[in-house]
Amino acid sequence: MTLEDVLLQVESGTDKALETLKEYCRFPTISAHKKAQPETAAFVRRLLAENGFEAREYPTEGGPNVVFGQMMVDERKPTLLMYQHYDVQPVDPLNEWKRDPFDPTIQDGKFWGRGCGDTKGNLIMQLLAVQAWRAVEGRPPINLKFVVEGEEEVGSPHFASFVHANKEILKADGATIEGGDHLHEGTPKIELGCKGILYVEMVSRTASVDQHSSYAAIAPNPAWRLIHALMTLRDAKGRIKVPGWYEDARRPTARELRFLKSSLFSSQALKGFWGVSEFIGGDNDFELLRRLIYSPTCTICGFVSGYIEQGTKTVNPAVAKAKIDFRLVPNMKQEKQLAKLREHLKTKGFGDIELMPAAEKLESAAISPSARVVKAAIKGSIDAYGREPEVWPWSIGASAHGFFNEVVGVPSISGPGVSYDGSNFHAPNENIRLTDFVGGSKHMAAMFARM
Amino acid sequence: MTLEDVLLQVESGTDKALETLKEYCRFPTISAHKKAQPETAAFVRRLLAENGFEAREYPTEGGPNVVFGQMMVDERKPTLLMYQHYDVQPVDPLNEWKRDPFDPTIQDGKFWGRGCGDTKGNLIMQLLAVQAWRAVEGRPPINLKFVVEGEEEVGSPHFASFVHANKEILKADGATIEGGDHLHEGTPKIELGCKGILYVEMVSRTASVDQHSSYAAIAPNPAWRLIHALMTLRDAKGRIKVPGWYEDARRPTARELRFLKSSLFSSQALKGFWGVSEFIGGDNDFELLRRLIYSPTCTICGFVSGYIEQGTKTVNPAVAKAKIDFRLVPNMKQEKQLAKLREHLKTKGFGDIELMPAAEKLESAAISPSARVVKAAIKGSIDAYGREPEVWPWSIGASAHGFFNEVVGVPSISGPGVSYDGSNFHAPNENIRLTDFVGGSKHMAAMFARM
Repeated sequence: MTLEDVLLQVESGTDKALETLKEYCRFPTISAHKKAQPETAAFVRRLLAENGFEAREYPTEGGPNVVFGQMMVDERKPTLLMYQHYDVQPVDPLNEWKRDPFDPTIQDGKFWGRGCGDTKGNLIMQLLAVQAWRAVEGRPPINLKFVVEGEEEVGSPHFASFVHANKEILKADGATIEGGDHLHEGTPKIELGCKGILYVEMVSRTASVDQHSSYAAIAPNPAWRLIHALMTLRDAKGRIKVPGWYEDARRPTARELRFLKSSLFSSQALKGFWGVSEFIGGDNDFELLRRLIYSPTCTICGFVSGYIEQGTKTVNPAVAKAKIDFRLVPNMKQEKQLAKLREHLKTKGFGDIELMPAAEKLESAAISPSARVVKAAIKGSIDAYGREPEVWPWSIGASAHGFFNEVVGVPSISGPGVSYDGSNFHAPNENIRLTDFVGGSKHMAAMFARM
Repeated sequence: MTLEDVLLQVESGTDKALETLKEYCRFPTISAHKKAQPETAAFVRRLLAENGFEAREYPTEGGPNVVFGQMMVDERKPTLLMYQHYDVQPVDPLNEWKRDPFDPTIQDGKFWGRGCGDTKGNLIMQLLAVQAWRAVEGRPPINLKFVVEGEEEVGSPHFASFVHANKEILKADGATIEGGDHLHEGTPKIELGCKGILYVEMVSRTASVDQHSSYAAIAPNPAWRLIHALMTLRDAKGRIKVPGWYEDARRPTARELRFLKSSLFSSQALKGFWGVSEFIGGDNDFELLRRLIYSPTCTICGFVSGYIEQGTKTVNPAVAKAKIDFRLVPNMKQEKQLAKLREHLKTKGFGDIELMPAAEKLESAAISPSARVVKAAIKGSIDAYGREPEVWPWSIGASAHGFFNEVVGVPSISGPGVSYDGSNFHAPNENIRLTDFVGGSKHMAAMFARM
């Protein structure tokens, strides 16, 4: 009964692991401010080395080091690759934090501090699983690799080139990406890939200076022009009107739909949380979830033109800008969709509207539910939690899956990790529940056995 | 040859008048900051009294005093009413001023200082005409009234109630409103009324908080909703689609079109100044001018939703706001047009979009080119400048004409006043040309004789 012993060992090792997590979370590694990156990378490398990994730092051109570690126990055994990042989001507004974000605290059954959920806690939780195996069996039952970068929170601008240059060392039979989370009542959740994102800024400039709005009868207006252009992109029900947009979009399989049928997703909860009275697509939870997962989207994340402060200003503006977020489902690729968008705008007579894609390189990715890593994650959930996890075909958010699935060819999943749907990622008072930390670690320990 | 003597007398009195203008412009009467209003009102009252007017201040409820002065020379003679305001616009950005805005200077044939054009210079220029008549003839040839308010630059929120309560004292055979201006090469310009303005804020709120944009497949988006609502208001060529919008709009008369045919309006100059490559309505100057004057407009002065700073944020916003400026041509009234707009949005299914009209009460107004005050202004132009003025049926901007034409029943014109098209109203380095100050005063002196 090795696994049972290992799971018990995870519990015994938890307090010490949480102390290590405190140390890790004290580094104020805000990548947006380029803070504390070298010392945090060194800490991660030492941590991996102390836990039996061959570990080294890989410099990137103009970015912080990527830490890579591996523990090859037996070449005939499968290999699991774990991706994390050692950077965190900025902490403002600081006055909304109940505690110092970089002086982590345990209170009320929770661990509080910036990065504990996203994703410093996941690395320590995974190492706890390794420690438990080493304590009980001397070594883990499979080969393990860690890759930990320092710029995920600013869109991983240097990670792509690291991955392309180091495909060989990243090879594995499966990968886990960051954390994922648990539902509020504790159900673990896994996702078999992610959506991709194409984020573009559209700019209409119709003059070099603003004009008095009394001239609007003859002077062109960039906000009107941008609105006319936007109207060619999407209809009122959210369907994207760019020709061929859906061509490559992956469609649901019967097996994926079965996962969704058993989902605990509740649109009612979201409505209450957001204060939304009606969802696009009605009130049927299964249909809404299907839509959420399989629909490419075209969202106005921001729009600005002219005078936007209190009161009136009679101005015909010179410029209007929109920030548009296209979520792509698996098989749709950024570059191809961007080319379709450009072509469409040109065809519709909006070639004057500037189209600037963001540097973000996160591509969509999906893997088969039959992949070894998926099966291991589901079995591991039964071992660790006594039940099957909630399975989503892929995450509706964008993540690093594309780098592994598409570039290296390693099928990847996310979750359940250490967090839950109240973890306040990117927000004040980031926290994880200690039960999820323990559950996540047991799940990893079990996954090692089930790979 | 009395008028000739009076015009010469204007020239002799100019230096002293400019000294008075300096005194007047030293008051930092910024109504947006409620600055120096009582002392400036008192200065204006004293000035009127010193020039032979019966003058007093009228308190307004919650606003600054309105100054009213009259000089009744003969009840059988016509009466001219002159409207000015003693307040000015804020001066920021201060670092763009070449001189202290409230320490007026004469240099390069120009008078520099905040308010010299809009409209402190006009009051002093008009008083110079009165002084010239008094010096030559002992009194002006007609009855004169001045009404000078202190809140024009913040939309005259208390002037309407003053006008309604004091219609009797404001009665006259004609009125001049603020200044107006000269074209760059010196041609004087007059306008026989003004457009009105209906300024509304439209707000779409689809949730109580922003959502992560990964939920956009099911979460409503207020920017998209507002855009769909806006698209029902106006077509790409600027035509307003609200049913019955144009019903009341005054159409051009043959006489008005003759004025426009002889206009010196040049769209080429505007294009260069604004950096606009193409105007709505083509390149024919006469057609563009007709459009400018007779077309009601629907302009997006401002639009804001979601994240508008540098870089990307993946957010599905909760709120979108647009500031819309409807310019109304004579006969169209704010309240009626607003009711049509409300009804239209409701009918189109956008009853959820909040519609908030600004407090601005400036209505459209137009008078007949046959009115006594118009004839006097045209004849006065020949006397003062040796040529006919450029005549526009009305101003494309909104002004106080409605208060006089519609409420009191006094036909009113604007122009040419003391300024020119480079006077930088509301901007840094406000200035007037001394030649226009003299020309404007001679024009007023001649108008007195021609009424």
